[in-house]
Amino acid sequence: MSETMMNAAVLEKPLTIAIKEVKRPAPGPYEALIKVYCIGVCGSDIHYYEHGKIGRYVVDRPIILGHELAGEVIQIGDKVTNVTIGDRVAVEPGVTCGRCNYCKSGRYNLCPEVIFMATPPVDGAWAEYVAIRSDFLFKLPEGMSYEEGALLEPLSVGFHAMKRGRVGPSDRVLILGLGPIGLLGIQAAKLFGVTEIIASDIVPFRREMALKLGATAVINPLEGNMSEQLSLLTGGDGIDVIIESSGNTQAISDTIRLVNRGGRIVYIGLPTAEQIPMDMNLLIDSELDVYGVFRYANTYPAAIQALKNSDIDLRHTITHKFALEDIQKAIDVATTQKDKSIKVMVYPIREDVERSNNN
Amino acid sequence: MSETMMNAAVLEKPLTIAIKEVKRPAPGPYEALIKVYCIGVCGSDIHYYEHGKIGRYVVDRPIILGHELAGEVIQIGDKVTNVTIGDRVAVEPGVTCGRCNYCKSGRYNLCPEVIFMATPPVDGAWAEYVAIRSDFLFKLPEGMSYEEGALLEPLSVGFHAMKRGRVGPSDRVLILGLGPIGLLGIQAAKLFGVTEIIASDIVPFRREMALKLGATAVINPLEGNMSEQLSLLTGGDGIDVIIESSGNTQAISDTIRLVNRGGRIVYIGLPTAEQIPMDMNLLIDSELDVYGVFRYANTYPAAIQALKNSDIDLRHTITHKFALEDIQKAIDVATTQKDKSIKVMVYPIREDVERSNNN
Amino acid sequence: MSETMMNAAVLEKPLTIAIKEVKRPAPGPYEALIKVYCIGVCGSDIHYYEHGKIGRYVVDRPIILGHELAGEVIQIGDKVTNVTIGDRVAVEPGVTCGRCNYCKSGRYNLCPEVIFMATPPVDGAWAEYVAIRSDFLFKLPEGMSYEEGALLEPLSVGFHAMKRGRVGPSDRVLILGLGPIGLLGIQAAKLFGVTEIIASDIVPFRREMALKLGATAVINPLEGNMSEQLSLLTGGDGIDVIIESSGNTQAISDTIRLVNRGGRIVYIGLPTAEQIPMDMNLLIDSELDVYGVFRYANTYPAAIQALKNSDIDLRHTITHKFALEDIQKAIDVATTQKDKSIKVMVYPIREDVERSNNN
Amino acid sequence: MSETMMNAAVLEKPLTIAIKEVKRPAPGPYEALIKVYCIGVCGSDIHYYEHGKIGRYVVDRPIILGHELAGEVIQIGDKVTNVTIGDRVAVEPGVTCGRCNYCKSGRYNLCPEVIFMATPPVDGAWAEYVAIRSDFLFKLPEGMSYEEGALLEPLSVGFHAMKRGRVGPSDRVLILGLGPIGLLGIQAAKLFGVTEIIASDIVPFRREMALKLGATAVINPLEGNMSEQLSLLTGGDGIDVIIESSGNTQAISDTIRLVNRGGRIVYIGLPTAEQIPMDMNLLIDSELDVYGVFRYANTYPAAIQALKNSDIDLRHTITHKFALEDIQKAIDVATTQKDKSIKVMVYPIREDVERSNNN
Repeated sequence: MSETMMNAAVLEKPLTIAIKEVKRPAPGPYEALIKVYCIGVCGSDIHYYEHGKIGRYVVDRPIILGHELAGEVIQIGDKVTNVTIGDRVAVEPGVTCGRCNYCKSGRYNLCPEVIFMATPPVDGAWAEYVAIRSDFLFKLPEGMSYEEGALLEPLSVGFHAMKRGRVGPSDRVLILGLGPIGLLGIQAAKLFGVTEIIASDIVPFRREMALKLGATAVINPLEGNMSEQLSLLTGGDGIDVIIESSGNTQAISDTIRLVNRGGRIVYIGLPTAEQIPMDMNLLIDSELDVYGVFRYANTYPAAIQALKNSDIDLRHTITHKFALEDIQKAIDVATTQKDKSIKVMVYPIREDVERSNNN
Repeated sequence: MSETMMNAAVLEKPLTIAIKEVKRPAPGPYEALIKVYCIGVCGSDIHYYEHGKIGRYVVDRPIILGHELAGEVIQIGDKVTNVTIGDRVAVEPGVTCGRCNYCKSGRYNLCPEVIFMATPPVDGAWAEYVAIRSDFLFKLPEGMSYEEGALLEPLSVGFHAMKRGRVGPSDRVLILGLGPIGLLGIQAAKLFGVTEIIASDIVPFRREMALKLGATAVINPLEGNMSEQLSLLTGGDGIDVIIESSGNTQAISDTIRLVNRGGRIVYIGLPTAEQIPMDMNLLIDSELDVYGVFRYANTYPAAIQALKNSDIDLRHTITHKFALEDIQKAIDVATTQKDKSIKVMVYPIREDVERSNNN
Repeated sequence: MSETMMNAAVLEKPLTIAIKEVKRPAPGPYEALIKVYCIGVCGSDIHYYEHGKIGRYVVDRPIILGHELAGEVIQIGDKVTNVTIGDRVAVEPGVTCGRCNYCKSGRYNLCPEVIFMATPPVDGAWAEYVAIRSDFLFKLPEGMSYEEGALLEPLSVGFHAMKRGRVGPSDRVLILGLGPIGLLGIQAAKLFGVTEIIASDIVPFRREMALKLGATAVINPLEGNMSEQLSLLTGGDGIDVIIESSGNTQAISDTIRLVNRGGRIVYIGLPTAEQIPMDMNLLIDSELDVYGVFRYANTYPAAIQALKNSDIDLRHTITHKFALEDIQKAIDVATTQKDKSIKVMVYPIREDVERSNNN
Repeated sequence: MSETMMNAAVLEKPLTIAIKEVKRPAPGPYEALIKVYCIGVCGSDIHYYEHGKIGRYVVDRPIILGHELAGEVIQIGDKVTNVTIGDRVAVEPGVTCGRCNYCKSGRYNLCPEVIFMATPPVDGAWAEYVAIRSDFLFKLPEGMSYEEGALLEPLSVGFHAMKRGRVGPSDRVLILGLGPIGLLGIQAAKLFGVTEIIASDIVPFRREMALKLGATAVINPLEGNMSEQLSLLTGGDGIDVIIESSGNTQAISDTIRLVNRGGRIVYIGLPTAEQIPMDMNLLIDSELDVYGVFRYANTYPAAIQALKNSDIDLRHTITHKFALEDIQKAIDVATTQKDKSIKVMVYPIREDVERSNNN
């Protein structure tokens, strides 16, 4: 292939994806070119694949998906000073303007001009190469794998949620919904020193995974009275903080009565229902704090530091690995085996699929 | 009357209230006896009068209502050191245990053992005298009237709301619902340095009152598109913080789409609906902060200090004054003239009704 | 003069300043060109003029000083969207990188790559024109004068100090040192709702000015026992927050014993002494919070909003006005009449000196 | 011995301590009587033993020292509901008034009316029994030993320091001074999720202990350039938070230049010097946050929850155990073997010294 071209998985329209030869991006003066080592499959990627849109974002022309990635710096623009060729880096996939009030006050995740990978019409990283402004690249410390680098993206959501909810070592935390966000949320809670984490999901495989990842107890919300179970599990102390990552209507509605008086609720999972019935009287009477979470900000360096010396290995959430050329298989697993798969990881170089298992 | 007896307005059962001679309370070692100068009529008093209950609190035996008061210390227990006989004081009407986690961590308003005046079965202060633990008495500085002392109670709710919502001088604030809490909320916002306060209510008299009290603009939520009006009034900047004090289902539901991205909503007004449809998707996408407010904590000394040198006079919210013996008239005004009355004030000594107008 | 040239006050070396014709700056794609209306003389300008350096910053080649300014947008780069030609704007004089951790987390004042006007070797704005990245321009609302726009710069320091010290309406505040920063700090405290502000300085003119600007009381630190005076003035309640803007060694040292237990101290004024003896034992025993303040961040839009509807007029701090051509006179006043001058304002167009008095 | 008497170690005057038979305390209505299982020897106990005073607190009559304890509830007053006879409890040794502003706002450690064990003239707990208000008793969860219960007291200081300094998983933390407070501060930092903890002390035994307890690196401040070592150890990232627990003049003075720009310093260790030279210019220029720590508040339930499921065992800091009757030996170790001892624990029942080693 020409040096100016590369392979990428292009979603032509919903349900139609194929490896194509496309133009390799060229980095601008403040950008770096990354040789992608691995890229995760995110729920949003699957949603675009299946439905062609998420809310106001519509796939109306071919798009490259994927935004959870790590790789190697192979070229840098002439203004780049924070990374150098050969660096192993995690890629934060949203480039913000740096000039609006949100950016300047530390909430750049709310920047109205953000350019976020794999959000139509912006291309993502299911490809061999990607170019991005270098201040969104973060060097992986020795001993941190590319896979962990890629998983910093979904971890960041939980990490941001813990910061928003001021979660600390004395909190009893309930995590609702144990997809990748919820499971990595367990890891995030542990990073913040939480020692009592109760996790809830209807899928047995996910509950098992939660226990492996450090949840102190798991609950099936379809079995028994949840309040009573929580009271029993906490010796009557109850739940101080709920992290809602299921997006389920009933789960969202239930949070208010499951949390302690004066407690906090952090909502991550986007529900499909336009309106959800909420017991606002109880929210007021219990004087709750409630926080929405939209993506994340300032989490990459923070999470790398938190993970550096910890005994947490994010890779336990990876259940499947595929070559980029097998993207259709990767998607099939993610769409049809929701009960057995958590994080599906994709590798542009086929040999890395195997090789990565030996690290 | 015997020195051990006093007059009080006793609610025998819903809709039946009368002045009775009851036992005058005797202060314990940590308590003081207060000669009540004036007491406000609160919406909750009216609700007990009309319906005999609020949520789990039921009037199942005769009760004295009223909890917004100020008066003079006329007797103190032998352990009392913070006030002395003759002191003019405001009375914070909820006595908390001081021993639970909520009390010890500064959120004593959530104390499960609170004894709160005029909340069944605890008697309130529509009476000549009241006894209370002296650490809930706060000396009125020179120049602050008894009426202002009594109004510290409803002001405290708004003051606490501003603290919960971290409201400051750079915030554009919308206050929904202009009863006494909302109107005093305008005063609270001004105390916190807010200079752009938009106030909304369906009652013209209340909107006029809001403008008199310092709202920069008022809105009738029944006229025109509220989002557009807010955008127009703020020059496109929008609303950073909403203080919801109406308790209206539609108003509560609307808040999420009326506030800026990254904004804050403080809910005070208790709705009657058990569930309110809320756009949780937008709450998450906008990464909002939401706070419930239940009563208040640590507001009395703070609000006294804030008011001391300010040019705000809380008394502008008082629309009617009655002698305690005319409690039925006071209640009639509060129940039937909701469109013309804001705060109704009651005086145990008939002459004080007139006298108070000359201060 | 050629359209590519302009007049500017150039400091050739310490004590040698003159109006020169220099190249007019040309705005880049993200920049705007500002026709300067007025520029303040700051203590740091005077320090560079007299001593040729401040700490590590040395005037080793000719430099244009001045960084407190407002003016009119007369040209914009093709990427500029937030301002347009004809806009009246305040200029925030430090351009930050937007890419480092400090910038991204909301503390851009600590950005190591900041380019700050009138800090060697960066030129400032004692000139007819200045070009700057447009996101550091803030439109002045109707009714806000250019002078107030220029004064937003020194006000910002106090505004930032109030935010750092979480100052609010219930705080008793002591401000030490009543130069422009301290006096505008009084205004900032008022914007944050503080109603009890005690101000201290050895210069009578400054104490008088403090009273005019809204201080509730003033103190001469050279007369009498300061602790006793503060206790007397506050009725024994003491000081909750100290804003130290004098930079005086003794004042800094005294703060710890002048503030209440559990209180806060914010240090702004840079002392010349390398080490100051501090009673750290008492700082610990009193469990104080102490905050350093370096410049400011996110204050311009916040302060404009706070001032918009307030009755505070920053212009009361302006004691002298000069044409830019008379820069030597302006400097002479600022250096020799420290007891009679507060803020000296300079105007590139001579007629504006007079005209501005009629607004 | 009579049931109304008990053994206690009474300090008659400096350097003179002996076991005496004293009156056993009788619990009031809100109090419980505790059969003491073990009590730590604190630096303050030793200081009173050696010097007879600490600051304003003077031993001018016989006193029982000791305030780090856990034991069994053997009698309760008739108002006590939170503990019951037979409960294993940790004892928080300062009883606060619950009525002052400090108590009500959550900072009860600053209560001016606190009654704190072993602070003259208040007796402590080097005794068989102690009575205390029951809301200062905290049940030990299953699996938490009495020793850990007693060590909650010194741990609380570090735990409070982490809260004051908002320490979290992304912070690089430096702890200065590795006595019991500093070493348990390492444990506290780990509980808050910190993974990079650098610890400094001049005593080799303490540095070794720090490594055993989880410090990632140790430094001898007497060897080499500390800034350079810190830069090397952190890969140039530097220190975000310093916890100063040595009380050493030089260490305190050094903190300002050892912490990153925008960083935080928490001072715990009380220095003996009345004034310490501090580089306030740099504190301001670096915009530091500085926090004093005086004892702690709300830490017991929080720390118990944090420890409950953690793999941290506080007992590693216990180097010596003695029967209460051997209090002189315990003191001798604590005073003469500062280089080999950390925490010395005392047991009223001689057999428990041995028995405790088998748990």
